[in-house]
Amino acid sequence: MPSLDLSTLVQQADTRIVLVVMDGLGGYATAERGSELEEASTPNLDRLASEGSTGLVEPVGPGITPGSGPGHLGLFGYDPLEYELGRGALSAAGLDVELKPGDVAARGNLATLDKDGNVTDRRAGRIPDEEAAAVVDKLRDGVDIDGLDVLLVPEAQHRVLVVLRGDGLDARVTDTDPQATGVPPLSPEPKVPDAKRTAEVVAELDGQVRALLANEAKANALLLRGFDSHRELPSMQQRYGVKPAAVAIYPMYRGIARLVGMEVLAKAADLDGQVAQLREHWERFDYFFVHHKYTDSAGEDGDFDRKVGAIEALDAAIPAIVDLGPDVVVVTGDHATPSQMAAHSWHPVPALMWGDRVGRDGTERFGERWCAGGLLGIRPTKDLMPVALAAAGRLAKYGA
Amino acid sequence: MPSLDLSTLVQQADTRIVLVVMDGLGGYATAERGSELEEASTPNLDRLASEGSTGLVEPVGPGITPGSGPGHLGLFGYDPLEYELGRGALSAAGLDVELKPGDVAARGNLATLDKDGNVTDRRAGRIPDEEAAAVVDKLRDGVDIDGLDVLLVPEAQHRVLVVLRGDGLDARVTDTDPQATGVPPLSPEPKVPDAKRTAEVVAELDGQVRALLANEAKANALLLRGFDSHRELPSMQQRYGVKPAAVAIYPMYRGIARLVGMEVLAKAADLDGQVAQLREHWERFDYFFVHHKYTDSAGEDGDFDRKVGAIEALDAAIPAIVDLGPDVVVVTGDHATPSQMAAHSWHPVPALMWGDRVGRDGTERFGERWCAGGLLGIRPTKDLMPVALAAAGRLAKYGA
Repeated sequence: MPSLDLSTLVQQADTRIVLVVMDGLGGYATAERGSELEEASTPNLDRLASEGSTGLVEPVGPGITPGSGPGHLGLFGYDPLEYELGRGALSAAGLDVELKPGDVAARGNLATLDKDGNVTDRRAGRIPDEEAAAVVDKLRDGVDIDGLDVLLVPEAQHRVLVVLRGDGLDARVTDTDPQATGVPPLSPEPKVPDAKRTAEVVAELDGQVRALLANEAKANALLLRGFDSHRELPSMQQRYGVKPAAVAIYPMYRGIARLVGMEVLAKAADLDGQVAQLREHWERFDYFFVHHKYTDSAGEDGDFDRKVGAIEALDAAIPAIVDLGPDVVVVTGDHATPSQMAAHSWHPVPALMWGDRVGRDGTERFGERWCAGGLLGIRPTKDLMPVALAAAGRLAKYGA
Repeated sequence: MPSLDLSTLVQQADTRIVLVVMDGLGGYATAERGSELEEASTPNLDRLASEGSTGLVEPVGPGITPGSGPGHLGLFGYDPLEYELGRGALSAAGLDVELKPGDVAARGNLATLDKDGNVTDRRAGRIPDEEAAAVVDKLRDGVDIDGLDVLLVPEAQHRVLVVLRGDGLDARVTDTDPQATGVPPLSPEPKVPDAKRTAEVVAELDGQVRALLANEAKANALLLRGFDSHRELPSMQQRYGVKPAAVAIYPMYRGIARLVGMEVLAKAADLDGQVAQLREHWERFDYFFVHHKYTDSAGEDGDFDRKVGAIEALDAAIPAIVDLGPDVVVVTGDHATPSQMAAHSWHPVPALMWGDRVGRDGTERFGERWCAGGLLGIRPTKDLMPVALAAAGRLAKYGA
């Protein structure tokens, strides 16, 4: 099927779009009660819903449970099946590490090998953060690979982001992590001839790490998987002609926003701080991504009431956002995180769009069951972006 | 994505489908009132809606404002992203000029150049029709290009359709219209080697036009843009096995219908005349496209009440159409033209389908908000065609 290059229709307009994302917003009703959003008291969101259009959105496809990467790409109008963020790129984004063209990133696990070199624990006993940091410091001091920078950034526990930086690298190398115990780490192999040197570098790194950590009780090796390169995503500026800013607190979302070309504003402490940043930078940008994390974390913890509370906290911030005078406001989530499941899920996510030219449907409340019959329909998340651009007067007519 | 070749499933049936198009039907509700269709009194359309299925259709894609060409191609079941009607082809269609294979058509503007040859007015002061016609007559008498016919057809004001007819032409030539004043017309350049001769012809035409119009005060040049060739679209007969007729009053829609292989019936004076033509030719065809223009023209004029009136006029014609005994009736629009915007828009367009086997949903009234939850769903306009064919018993089972 042919698809339309939206950038050919982009026109400039002095209008502002605000996308408010409640992470993991979606949920589902049971015999006992509605979804978190249906049960929450959300007078301000209900007002936007009743004055605007509503619908349900699917981030990747029917039945597909999205990770945060694809969930957000969809929100920014990028088809998550076309544009992929690898584990390395997302790890880097989550650590505020900016991958550069040519970099190769991998997810590392500090691990325990026995005296025969077989893996006995792929997570080095889930080594505490401080111990892991000390081990990583030792590696930083000792690792030395000719002509290359090796960045090592500890994540939680045994997890370490590894970035190789230098000329001539190629991420198409097989994992050294055997994903099993009782066997030795795997030998890195190039998947293509161009990756031969990178495979040699990874083998050299593996050897140096084992030598440097030989006396460590727990963490005496580093298993690598998911080699990934910097992926150049087309920017939102290129695709939509907007000047976008991100108002997000958590590193991963700040990172993803940066990958699509947003300017990431300084970290705010809370929702009030995020709204204050919108206000401060209102004139400098015309597209704002506001990310609210706590709906998802409560859902992930299986805490229905806390997720309701996180939704209500966001609801309370809506009037201040509307007061700024946006032309179009979109409120939705990057995926569902039903607290019954304590995990991401495939359920469609409620969405509302509000603005002078959006039009209104019969929906009076913001919630899964009410949005199902709304004017936005049930559609891929990525389709919200062109509709928002259109409602902001930013897309010209197609065809004569 | 694989797509299904509908023609492999086509079967014959003694059934008739009527597609009633209210041009620019879609609109949107505001705080003050509903859309034009929601506010209109449409007892007959409401009856069809309540006895049949309803939905909303998007002609090109979410957020995309369609021109009349893509809007109608979608109605006839052609993906507007796959089949394109260029400006030249549409202009020709709108003037009842039939492009032949090999023809190259362009949109021309009579324009004013100063003594240095720079454009001072791209529209020759929006020269009145009669003056423009006199200028075009002068060109018809004078232009002489070896081996070629040059058709010049005045449209409104400064607009002139130019058709080059002869052997060896190729439309892949750059515009001579600089789309700016204070600069000279552009030199036509071939975009591909095959278009070299055509570029030379266009340059020669430009020179002859300037010489012939040298003494004109306003219109002393012709700026050309959008070179386009005859595009052979597969016919509705080939694709669907139907024998289609168009009952349209306005030239552009008659032209588009002809491009998809419809027989275009003689021009009627009004809706009653259109219905009379349906009746007269009922036995000769099995697919009828009835086009009602006035909803769009009222919308384009920003006249809410007149658009309501145009909808009500169409509503009044419905019983006579139903009396003919069609098996399937589809009523929808080619795009939205909200009178608030006085322009085409991206808003989804209400659609209803009526017939013995269509099935009925809970929708009792024809209007955006009521159609949003209907059985037809919210879907691309082009999908209405296969559903209508199926409901008319014209599509066989797929697969064993």
